[in-house]
Amino acid sequence: MSKRIAGPEIERLIQLLAKVPGLGPRSARRAALHLIKKKDQLLGPLAGAMADARDKVRVCSTCGNVDTADPCMICTDPKRDAAMIIVVEDVSDLWALERAGAMNARYHVLGGVLSPLDGIGPDQLTIKQLVDRVSEGGVSEVVLAVNATVEGQTTAHYLTDQLAHMEVKITRLAHGVPVGGELDYLDEGTLAAALKSRTIF
Amino acid sequence: MSKRIAGPEIERLIQLLAKVPGLGPRSARRAALHLIKKKDQLLGPLAGAMADARDKVRVCSTCGNVDTADPCMICTDPKRDAAMIIVVEDVSDLWALERAGAMNARYHVLGGVLSPLDGIGPDQLTIKQLVDRVSEGGVSEVVLAVNATVEGQTTAHYLTDQLAHMEVKITRLAHGVPVGGELDYLDEGTLAAALKSRTIF
Repeated sequence: MSKRIAGPEIERLIQLLAKVPGLGPRSARRAALHLIKKKDQLLGPLAGAMADARDKVRVCSTCGNVDTADPCMICTDPKRDAAMIIVVEDVSDLWALERAGAMNARYHVLGGVLSPLDGIGPDQLTIKQLVDRVSEGGVSEVVLAVNATVEGQTTAHYLTDQLAHMEVKITRLAHGVPVGGELDYLDEGTLAAALKSRTIF
Repeated sequence: MSKRIAGPEIERLIQLLAKVPGLGPRSARRAALHLIKKKDQLLGPLAGAMADARDKVRVCSTCGNVDTADPCMICTDPKRDAAMIIVVEDVSDLWALERAGAMNARYHVLGGVLSPLDGIGPDQLTIKQLVDRVSEGGVSEVVLAVNATVEGQTTAHYLTDQLAHMEVKITRLAHGVPVGGELDYLDEGTLAAALKSRTIF
């Protein structure tokens, strides 16, 4: 705001809201006003939920997931198959796979991908922790669910090298046509991969 | 999330963030994860700012603005021209006019517009308070800065009637071509108004 028209509390709220991904300076103002109008229904509960998350959420020391418990609920869930570890770049990928609900396995969050240009080498990721988890035994399969980008694939190759000497099956996600996707809009690489991995109808 | 993968604190944070205008269910998850990762730089300060706003922000009993003080900073600012009241529908309009920084006047927030179909009559708005403020004297001009919608204009006409018997000049915002606007994209009503109110170059 060009002039001071309200106490610093409101301006500070707008400034901080503008840093939330998905909100810009303009929508932060709109959001702040909406929150102030819904003080009891939304602003209060959200302030409480944020304070709660701030105080209670931690990173799981086993897999890198975020949770209020350490080890996290997934790592301690006895119904999960401890023999399968799905390796992901980020917690958001873990959440996406959980929403798909396809596998009842455990996870390992790398915290990124190898990217020498950005100064991210093996030591910046949780690769050693993954190797340690596998060496402890009991793991029969490691699924490399990294993104299908150059960095993701480089990281996958590096992980394969690191795990090569162990008695563990290493798999990766299938390439192919996205469900609901139109061929016309797909790139040649995806189409070629989908043709190569075609299955009996 | 389809299964429980984290403590209820994170799910509650996502659910509440999804209610913030500008964020949907998908971006709420992304925002929650970003906040958790930036616990000290963003999540903590934002939780504090929201608690602060919840505890301190109130509606100005004079003009309807939101502020931590009542009467608000604008109503108590001695540098503001108390003789001019700019009537707006909502606090967001007040903020927009303040950002434009064109006038050094005081405001009156109606809290909406007359809309009989939605059950909003004069008693649901702060019309009586406005009439009272003007009757108290010292006000020479009331600027009706309501939106150029049917309901806005109906409200403006109603306000004009209510203030007609008082010694006060009633004005409205000029219609015309938006600064930076292209004629080709403007509706006929705006163009006709801009032509009618043309000024010497």
